[in-house]
Amino acid sequence: MKMIHIILYFLALLSYTSHATTTSVNDFCVANLLLPNTPSGYPCKPQSLVTENDFVFSKLGPGVLIQPFNAGTTTVSVKNLPGLNGLGISAGRVDIGINGTIPMHTHPDATELLIVSQGQITAGFITPTKLIVKNLNPGDVFVFPQGLLHFQVNSGVGNAVAFVAYSNSYPNIHLLDILLFGNNLSTPTLEKTTLLDAAQIMKLKAQLGGSG
Amino acid sequence: MKMIHIILYFLALLSYTSHATTTSVNDFCVANLLLPNTPSGYPCKPQSLVTENDFVFSKLGPGVLIQPFNAGTTTVSVKNLPGLNGLGISAGRVDIGINGTIPMHTHPDATELLIVSQGQITAGFITPTKLIVKNLNPGDVFVFPQGLLHFQVNSGVGNAVAFVAYSNSYPNIHLLDILLFGNNLSTPTLEKTTLLDAAQIMKLKAQLGGSG
Amino acid sequence: MKMIHIILYFLALLSYTSHATTTSVNDFCVANLLLPNTPSGYPCKPQSLVTENDFVFSKLGPGVLIQPFNAGTTTVSVKNLPGLNGLGISAGRVDIGINGTIPMHTHPDATELLIVSQGQITAGFITPTKLIVKNLNPGDVFVFPQGLLHFQVNSGVGNAVAFVAYSNSYPNIHLLDILLFGNNLSTPTLEKTTLLDAAQIMKLKAQLGGSG
Amino acid sequence: MKMIHIILYFLALLSYTSHATTTSVNDFCVANLLLPNTPSGYPCKPQSLVTENDFVFSKLGPGVLIQPFNAGTTTVSVKNLPGLNGLGISAGRVDIGINGTIPMHTHPDATELLIVSQGQITAGFITPTKLIVKNLNPGDVFVFPQGLLHFQVNSGVGNAVAFVAYSNSYPNIHLLDILLFGNNLSTPTLEKTTLLDAAQIMKLKAQLGGSG
Amino acid sequence: MKMIHIILYFLALLSYTSHATTTSVNDFCVANLLLPNTPSGYPCKPQSLVTENDFVFSKLGPGVLIQPFNAGTTTVSVKNLPGLNGLGISAGRVDIGINGTIPMHTHPDATELLIVSQGQITAGFITPTKLIVKNLNPGDVFVFPQGLLHFQVNSGVGNAVAFVAYSNSYPNIHLLDILLFGNNLSTPTLEKTTLLDAAQIMKLKAQLGGSG
Amino acid sequence: MKMIHIILYFLALLSYTSHATTTSVNDFCVANLLLPNTPSGYPCKPQSLVTENDFVFSKLGPGVLIQPFNAGTTTVSVKNLPGLNGLGISAGRVDIGINGTIPMHTHPDATELLIVSQGQITAGFITPTKLIVKNLNPGDVFVFPQGLLHFQVNSGVGNAVAFVAYSNSYPNIHLLDILLFGNNLSTPTLEKTTLLDAAQIMKLKAQLGGSG
Repeated sequence: MKMIHIILYFLALLSYTSHATTTSVNDFCVANLLLPNTPSGYPCKPQSLVTENDFVFSKLGPGVLIQPFNAGTTTVSVKNLPGLNGLGISAGRVDIGINGTIPMHTHPDATELLIVSQGQITAGFITPTKLIVKNLNPGDVFVFPQGLLHFQVNSGVGNAVAFVAYSNSYPNIHLLDILLFGNNLSTPTLEKTTLLDAAQIMKLKAQLGGSG
Repeated sequence: MKMIHIILYFLALLSYTSHATTTSVNDFCVANLLLPNTPSGYPCKPQSLVTENDFVFSKLGPGVLIQPFNAGTTTVSVKNLPGLNGLGISAGRVDIGINGTIPMHTHPDATELLIVSQGQITAGFITPTKLIVKNLNPGDVFVFPQGLLHFQVNSGVGNAVAFVAYSNSYPNIHLLDILLFGNNLSTPTLEKTTLLDAAQIMKLKAQLGGSG
Repeated sequence: MKMIHIILYFLALLSYTSHATTTSVNDFCVANLLLPNTPSGYPCKPQSLVTENDFVFSKLGPGVLIQPFNAGTTTVSVKNLPGLNGLGISAGRVDIGINGTIPMHTHPDATELLIVSQGQITAGFITPTKLIVKNLNPGDVFVFPQGLLHFQVNSGVGNAVAFVAYSNSYPNIHLLDILLFGNNLSTPTLEKTTLLDAAQIMKLKAQLGGSG
Repeated sequence: MKMIHIILYFLALLSYTSHATTTSVNDFCVANLLLPNTPSGYPCKPQSLVTENDFVFSKLGPGVLIQPFNAGTTTVSVKNLPGLNGLGISAGRVDIGINGTIPMHTHPDATELLIVSQGQITAGFITPTKLIVKNLNPGDVFVFPQGLLHFQVNSGVGNAVAFVAYSNSYPNIHLLDILLFGNNLSTPTLEKTTLLDAAQIMKLKAQLGGSG
Repeated sequence: MKMIHIILYFLALLSYTSHATTTSVNDFCVANLLLPNTPSGYPCKPQSLVTENDFVFSKLGPGVLIQPFNAGTTTVSVKNLPGLNGLGISAGRVDIGINGTIPMHTHPDATELLIVSQGQITAGFITPTKLIVKNLNPGDVFVFPQGLLHFQVNSGVGNAVAFVAYSNSYPNIHLLDILLFGNNLSTPTLEKTTLLDAAQIMKLKAQLGGSG
Repeated sequence: MKMIHIILYFLALLSYTSHATTTSVNDFCVANLLLPNTPSGYPCKPQSLVTENDFVFSKLGPGVLIQPFNAGTTTVSVKNLPGLNGLGISAGRVDIGINGTIPMHTHPDATELLIVSQGQITAGFITPTKLIVKNLNPGDVFVFPQGLLHFQVNSGVGNAVAFVAYSNSYPNIHLLDILLFGNNLSTPTLEKTTLLDAAQIMKLKAQLGGSG
């Protein structure tokens, strides 16, 4: 922790306390990211230090396209828009290049709402009894209910862009490949728990940074 | 209620019941809009009748510009995207023509997140101790915390467009002018409770359909 | 922050920690108002420092009548009754002098329940499609659902008194006149977003402390 | 179910459905008490049938004093004020005659807030590690956190009156004596699980209607 | 829907309604599984039809071991223990034969708590930045936070048995292999969104009932 | 507070802060038991200090049998399994010796789910209008809804064992005898509020440590 952070921490505490009896407590609770999070969100920044910049993120531009997926996402969460703290919502932008894809993933704590802005996207989610897949065009809105495995594929001929909203102020993104092949969970355990072949597992571990 | 609705109602009940012991109950709960709402949302449509179309809205285009505000909003809620039921999120599009404005309003049950897509928008919200106003450009994201009075003004030279998300599957929109001047609340009561002059009140009642 | 506050802060932390393994954590969570609030409420005061006074407010008497409304409210919230922390309820008393009024306002985070104790009160709330107004006598109970614009008027010949409860441990009170005319939001912006005339706006700004 | 109820049931469904696409869904959800409750509250009455009377209870007067406790409570819940549905709050009035008491009880689903209106009341609640007791005078406000065993005793020389609010739209009242001695739970089981003597148990069962 | 179900449906409604004004509403809400679910759970069965059997499931015995995993789970949810409705908890039993495994899966809406009763189990869950794996013995308790990908492997020499609890009255179980290979999501789409080889995908589709 | 705790406290804060911008915030929130609790749970331990041991409790063995009840319970809560923080679930083990009993008690904040593992248990709970009692055998699962007074009796010929789960990360246990007779609430007040005889009260106070 840099010295400046320690100073900011005590400044915040100071400001907060000295104004505590004269200010509102519930109109909003801008995150004080210097203090530890709680299950309901970050402690509130003192109102006297809150400015209009706590409620704006500037600017949500095109994301860097990550290979081999040729796609990228940018997320506007409580971490970079602290006014979202405790409000149960956040946003993002999805860019999918030609032939690109946002691979299989889940958001364990959030529903995702997607608004296609440009191009064609095939979106889908999967439950044990349903496969829901839909081709989307600009202006189409699609919902991925909380916790379900889902994906987006560029099904058009040019770049695709979408804006997304999440029902959580910090939407964790769990890419299936990273979960399975990006750590050192042993190949025999993976074989047993996924039915994948050892060769397949080792090939993808090599690609995604896993070992074991 | 049209006869077809009665039939659909019993069909739904039938399908639901006969499959009740073999299907999931929680992966999602698509709204059965033919049954009465509850505080937690609509009763669930039977899984056997759920299709991919329950999770998509097509398509969120430019809204009709309403005068005198020269602006319009389109909302994608549980009413037209029933897969949103119970998930605490919805979406919309805001179009503000030249010199237009989305006038003062509240969403009593929802935080609003706004992503500017085109043009310049000046957005603001008000609490008893803070006035938060910010000029926004394309890509900027702004949050209006739940229940607070707020507005958006086109501050650029062309049309402005934004996508919005709400932390509720049905975001009520309470325009202040409609609340004050769109019904028959008596002018003397309005004078006492708003401090506005009677002449001002009567002028706006005439404009907004109110009486009394 | 006074030195005594710093000492109290560490005392609290100390007591808390040393007793942590032997005391209950959930029976109640009395607010430690010296620490920053969170979206779920204040951190808990250590049980060893909790006394019966943390659960009582003494006493909720007649409020000072504020002009020009000739009315006043007193609120018993987590700020002066720290045992309310995390429990989603608070209380208050409303006094409305002859011809007085509690002007148009909202509670963005709370439903209000009003019990008339003395006199006659006309209470009302407004939604885009409903105007609900009712004349109340002593013993009558009225509910103002969360976030809706509402008012109370003394409609009798003597003073009126009511007790109120809120569904939040800290009920923010947003008086419409203060929101619109008590800050420096520019008159042209107010004109555009409220349709009020500039003269009316400037007259009320002068009265309520606003500028711009 | 009387025929009129069946008719009302279908009328409600009819009205609801035919207006479903044009009315708000979330501003409030007045209970339709003719339909089965859900964990979140009753289904909503159609907006077209909602009137101002759905938001008022008239009037909360002195309760009948029940012997041997010489005290009585009246409750204003979703059952007699259907506008409370889904809003997490309700109210009541407590009358305690001279030497009277509201005996030991819990509200399993609600915090209680008590405002003394007349007389003196000694109020208390109990946890395994704390006994919180306080003498209250008119205007004093006391909170009984959710689920805790508590009581109120008239500690003055005249009648005592208090208004109460609960953090639930239907506050169940569990009087300890009724739970223990008002049913047919066998005396040997009661002896084992309370350590009370059989003679004491049988004496109170005779008084409170229990058997076994 | 069998005729008997229609009769039961109206019987339930009848009983409910005729007793509605005299019975409690919140002590519990036993599921009426004949009516459609809502986001907060099933409508409540009328209290007059509630019996002690609504609160018991008899009996949670060894599950059938499913191949090729040589393991089985039995779940006690609101569907077979209707008293769980709205209470946010359910239970289950896990049996893992020699060399068996509960393969990779998620519970999108529930945290899982596992108590080992017999044998040795290696349990683990995965996030993008953490792999948490632990060898468990009888009496050990392990928690899998909501929505995370996880697994259990029999790491002992005999059968393993565990009891589990979930933080939801109906814990959906999403087996990764079923999601990926048990439906007709096209092999090219799976290749793009999982990086798995087509041959691997087709081999597992053949095993798990998928096509396309 | 021991010096080591102070050091740990600052270490935690340090680690947390320095990694704050690069780690997830919501996948889990392991309790930092050194910091004060909040209504939503403890502040989160920094991810860099989280290990697999934060998610396991070892081991839930037979509890010490307490006299005169000849029974004991062991609880696995956020206090000894910090990974449970914010997840709304915990566990325990109940041991009831021959002729033993878990006496009348409530959990003010939790539903309890009981799975009988060995022996015979008679379980019951009580509401003002219902007495629910059931004889349970190994494998039977029983639910005690939140806040209700309940008990368990060994109704077999040998020891009885059960595993339990609670819908709260810290299940307070309120034994009725401790509440009534384990503190210094005066005997006259107890007489008035319970209808018990003074002799009975004094006898049990002597047994349970109470005075007054």
